[in-house]
Formats: sequence, structure tokens, C-alpha cells
Amino acid sequence: MPETPFIAIELGTLQANISRAAESARASGYALRPHVKTHKIIEIARMQEAAGVLGISVATLGEAEVFVAAGFTDVFIAYPLWLTEAKAQRLDALLDQATIRLGVDSAEAGTQLVKMLGGRAPLLELLIEVDSGHHRSGIEPEKVGELGAHLASLGLEVSGVFTFPGHSYAPGALSTAAEDEAKALATARDQLMAVGQTDAIICSGGSTPSLASANVQVITEQRPGVYVFNDAQQLELGSCDWVDVALTVQATVVSIRGNRVIVDAGSKTLGADRAGYASGYGRILEFHDARIVALSEHHATIEFPEGELPNRGDVLSVIPNHVCNTVNLADQVYVFDRGELVDTWMVAARGRNS
Amino acid sequence: MPETPFIAIELGTLQANISRAAESARASGYALRPHVKTHKIIEIARMQEAAGVLGISVATLGEAEVFVAAGFTDVFIAYPLWLTEAKAQRLDALLDQATIRLGVDSAEAGTQLVKMLGGRAPLLELLIEVDSGHHRSGIEPEKVGELGAHLASLGLEVSGVFTFPGHSYAPGALSTAAEDEAKALATARDQLMAVGQTDAIICSGGSTPSLASANVQVITEQRPGVYVFNDAQQLELGSCDWVDVALTVQATVVSIRGNRVIVDAGSKTLGADRAGYASGYGRILEFHDARIVALSEHHATIEFPEGELPNRGDVLSVIPNHVCNTVNLADQVYVFDRGELVDTWMVAARGRNS
Repeated sequence: MPETPFIAIELGTLQANISRAAESARASGYALRPHVKTHKIIEIARMQEAAGVLGISVATLGEAEVFVAAGFTDVFIAYPLWLTEAKAQRLDALLDQATIRLGVDSAEAGTQLVKMLGGRAPLLELLIEVDSGHHRSGIEPEKVGELGAHLASLGLEVSGVFTFPGHSYAPGALSTAAEDEAKALATARDQLMAVGQTDAIICSGGSTPSLASANVQVITEQRPGVYVFNDAQQLELGSCDWVDVALTVQATVVSIRGNRVIVDAGSKTLGADRAGYASGYGRILEFHDARIVALSEHHATIEFPEGELPNRGDVLSVIPNHVCNTVNLADQVYVFDRGELVDTWMVAARGRNS
Repeated sequence: MPETPFIAIELGTLQANISRAAESARASGYALRPHVKTHKIIEIARMQEAAGVLGISVATLGEAEVFVAAGFTDVFIAYPLWLTEAKAQRLDALLDQATIRLGVDSAEAGTQLVKMLGGRAPLLELLIEVDSGHHRSGIEPEKVGELGAHLASLGLEVSGVFTFPGHSYAPGALSTAAEDEAKALATARDQLMAVGQTDAIICSGGSTPSLASANVQVITEQRPGVYVFNDAQQLELGSCDWVDVALTVQATVVSIRGNRVIVDAGSKTLGADRAGYASGYGRILEFHDARIVALSEHHATIEFPEGELPNRGDVLSVIPNHVCNTVNLADQVYVFDRGELVDTWMVAARGRNS
């Protein structure tokens, strides 16, 4: 057994999560283009491919490079990259090996693409990012027509629109965020059609919490990431159940005082994420009523209900709040099949942030 | 120039921070045993050594292994390790190469040490951890005598006591936390003396915020970590000034809407830390009045005051909230001397959490 703290993945649960989402996409008629930023692991992307996925989403050029090198040939960099000369050279190299889609949310970024990539810029499939309520990057859906026409006038290829309904990450917001998403994408799509875009327009959305509520009349593809593992955020938002959690951090009890227990996994292993709605810094698989009330770099402080205390030296399964940041802290993960260690996978794209 | 996002260290500021703390320790008569978990970088530990530091602190066995392999021979693992067989073998190997100090906060951990290390256990210098108000690991100072006597009866070597006054991380708490620290350490020391400990008793404390307020009549050594770089938490707590910030994450403006600016550094580069007192998810060196109001994995959303907007493609210097977690996300850092790139250092102990 590896030494704690370490990441454990339960293979059967992982496979079930991957299959369920792929089947749901087939049944509903949208393309599933999973966001591999969550796992950054080649073996898991291959499981997704085997379940019927045709393309993947990534957040950075570095992630795209890792997955293209591993043989993935249809990659959406779902991010409004600003191309420097060095980044343009890397993107250009990827265009020789794969179909590359890129996010864009300004006329300036379009001009920069043409300036940096020259005659190669039209090889990119561009998706205009729209804001559906998360208020991060992306433009108002009503402005998509103007930007689409401008990008086309630069000779660029606009294939559709995308959004991230990140405001689904709030209690009770799952279905309203999905409605906002559909409305924003429909408006944006209609704007593109009004300025002469007549080919099939990609309408790409999707977060794990809003996945089940997505309006499949509008959305042509979804880009969930977390669904492969789930995490304490999904549990507490009600978008998964305990049995759907495929990844935990195994941690040893090192200290106990009263009903407060310290385990050897902290923010350097779990990540420091704590959304406003979270009940703590993660959950414990074996003790549903325990709460992680404080987190240091190498200590999680867990309050236990009366009569449920573990012993020093016991190993607990900590479910991190936000699994994407947890995986990004580890060089490798350990794969278990019903409790037996069966494999070790590298987190191939760990730290590929640029 | 490296591609954003990347970590930039300003060498002159780093050297000034290291020298100032070393001089202050000499002037006040305590030993400085810096916590290298903050930087995890061999080159910086050597700068600390050159400034007069004789020993270092680490949080994990893995960090100890990295620094002992690099030639450091006096290492305090300031953590109540629970020794498995595998961890005991690794600790045993370190004892051949260095003086190793270890934290302990229970009779059970002492018994486990003897069980796992046998006749080698007395080679460890043990420091009993006491709780001075942070309520993490550590025992009540009043119980140190009992535990000290018990550990001695097992044949173990108790060299002193230590605490982490982590409750100094709150506005206005700097000096009261330092008072709590001194009181707890003094009580614990007196308890050890009462049970027959007559050698010089190590009283080890110190966090960066409480460093300047420490009671040097009680404390024999301090273990600050963050002081080498400083960060947005130290800025907002008032324990450093803007000119003392030696580390920033260089990030590019990729999107702008109204007065909200998105840069390409998010929680996978900065860390997701946000203490209750923090004004946001970090600060911007060039724009003191801007605030990071939201953070995704690859997006920081920054609100700017009217009339101060940067342009797309501009590179900003983001000061992370908690620099220890930021450095742990990067494989390397870039070293600048007055703006000129002069070196690249590996984060040698990155991810060494077990």
C-alpha cells in the first residue's frame, strides 16, 4: 500500500461514472466532449474515448500538447488564449497534428490570432465565448453577431458558441443555471445565423452540476469534467451520491484531542477550495457526519460526533471539495479494484498551466 | 521571458528578507530554524544557511529526504508523524545522515516510535507539541510533564517543546498570539523541568506574522517560513510592506468586460486559499486598489477602479494569498535581478507530502 497521503481511485466507480454520462449523451443526442482538466490522465481519457467520446476539452495549451502527444486528435482549448509569439508557435505545431478548437471573446484576440498565426489562423475552429451568468470571461449573447461578423471579416472560421454555466455551483441553482445556459446559447446561435452563418452551429455548454438539467434542444455538446470522479462539492450540491465518488485522498490519523481528529492530508494534498455553501474542507467517506472544520498545509482538523472516533494510525478516505485542484497536486494516482491496488497512473498534464 | 502564468522571484528582495530575519535573530539571541516548506527550494535554503541559519524545519518525511540529500544535516520534522513500517525505514535511513528532530503529541505516538524504530528511536530528538491557541495538533501545556515523563520512561530523548501560533493569522492578533505562544511554551518548559529534565530545553515557536512580537525571554528558536517571500496575507495582516514581496505570479490579461479583467492565473497556479480576513484571492503589485473578486482554475477575475484598466496582453504581477501553496503548484520558479531573468530554480520538494 502506498504511504499516506495519496490519491486512491476506485476503478469500478470511475468506469460507471464514465459509462453513465456517455449513455446519457447518446440517449439525448448531444456530443460529450469531457473536460480533461479534471483528471489530466491519459488512461482516463482513453476510457472516455472507449465509451464513445470523440473529442476532448482542455483549459491550456500545455494540456492540449500532452493529450495530442498521446494521440488525441480533436481538442477544444476552451479558453480565450492571448497568443504571444511563443504560444503561437506551440499552437501552430498542434495544428499539424490535430483539429484544434479555440475560445475567443474579443475582436482584439481575433486580430492577435491573425497577427501571430497569419495564414494558419483559419485552420482553427473558433467558438465565441458567451457569459450565461457566471460573469467570468465571455461576452453578452446579444453581441455575438457583431463579433462573429468581425472575426469572419478577418478570414477566421467561427464554428459556434460556448459557455460555462459556473453559477450552477450553488445550492438550488442546478436547473436555473441550465436554463440560463440554454437561453444564452440560443440567443448567441441566433445572432450568428442572422449574420450569415449557415453551417451547423456548435452550441457547447455544460458543467457537472447542470449536466442532467441541460436543455438538449439547444445544446449540441457538453463539457463536464468532474463527473468522472465526483467530489464533496457535487455531494453537497446533490448532483451525486456517496456511491458515485470515485476518488479519495487516503490519510492517516496522527493526532486526537477530544472529538477533534487530525489527519495528514491538508491543503497541499486536498487543495484549499471552500465554496460558500460547503460544510467544511471536504467530507469523510467512512464517517458521513464528521466535518473538516479547519485545514492547514498538512493537517485536516476533523470534528467527529460523539462515540464515532477513529484511532491514531487509522487511515480515512477524505473526499476533497474540488477534485480538479486535488489531482493537480499529485504526480500520480493509485488505482484500486474493490480495494486491491491494481495500477498506478501518472497525472500526465499536472501543472501544465501555460 | 517564460510564458505566463509563471512564478517570478526578485532576488534582491528575497536576499533582503533572508538577511533581515537572520540579523534580527542574532540581535535577539534566538536560533532561526526556517520552515523550508514555504519554498521547497535548495538554492534558497543555501541562502538561509549563508545568512547564519544552522538548522531547518520541514513538514514531511519527503521534504526531509530532499534537504538531507542536498547536504542539510540538522532537520526538524515539525509534525507528529505516525510511523508505519515504510515511514520508519525512511526515518531510520535519515538518522544515518543527519540530526533529526521530530514532533510528538501523544503517548501512543511514542510507543509507536519505539515499536517501529527499536533501539534507534533514542537517536531522535523529540519535541513535544503544545497547543498555544491554534487548536490543531499539540496538547495542553499543562500536560507536558506527564507526557514527557512517559516518553522518557520509554527510553526516548525529549529535547524540548514546540508550538505553532497559527492564530496569529488574523487581523490584530499578531501580538496576542505571540503572548499566547510564550505563555504556552513557558508552562510546557516548566513542566518538563518539574519532571527532571535539566538540560537546555528547546522552546521552539514562530510564525511569520508573530515573528517580530515573539517573547525572546522564553523562545529559544523560531520557525517562520513565509518571511522569505511574503504574500498577500502578510500584506493584509500588516506584517510586511509591498516592497518586501519577493514572489509574484506573472499573468496575462486575456479578457476584459467593463472594469472586470481576467488574467490567466487561477487556483491551479495561485492556490485557492482565502482566509476570512482576505480582501480577495490575492493582490496586484502594479494596481494596489484592484481586487481579485473571483478565482477559477485558470481565471482570476479582477475588479479595477475606474480609469485604471490594463490592456489585453498586458502582464500583471499577482501576489498570491498564501505563498506556500502557490510554490507547491510549480515545478520551477524564475529568478529575476531588477527585472532581468538570471536563473531558474527547481522546486525540489514540490509535492513531497508523504
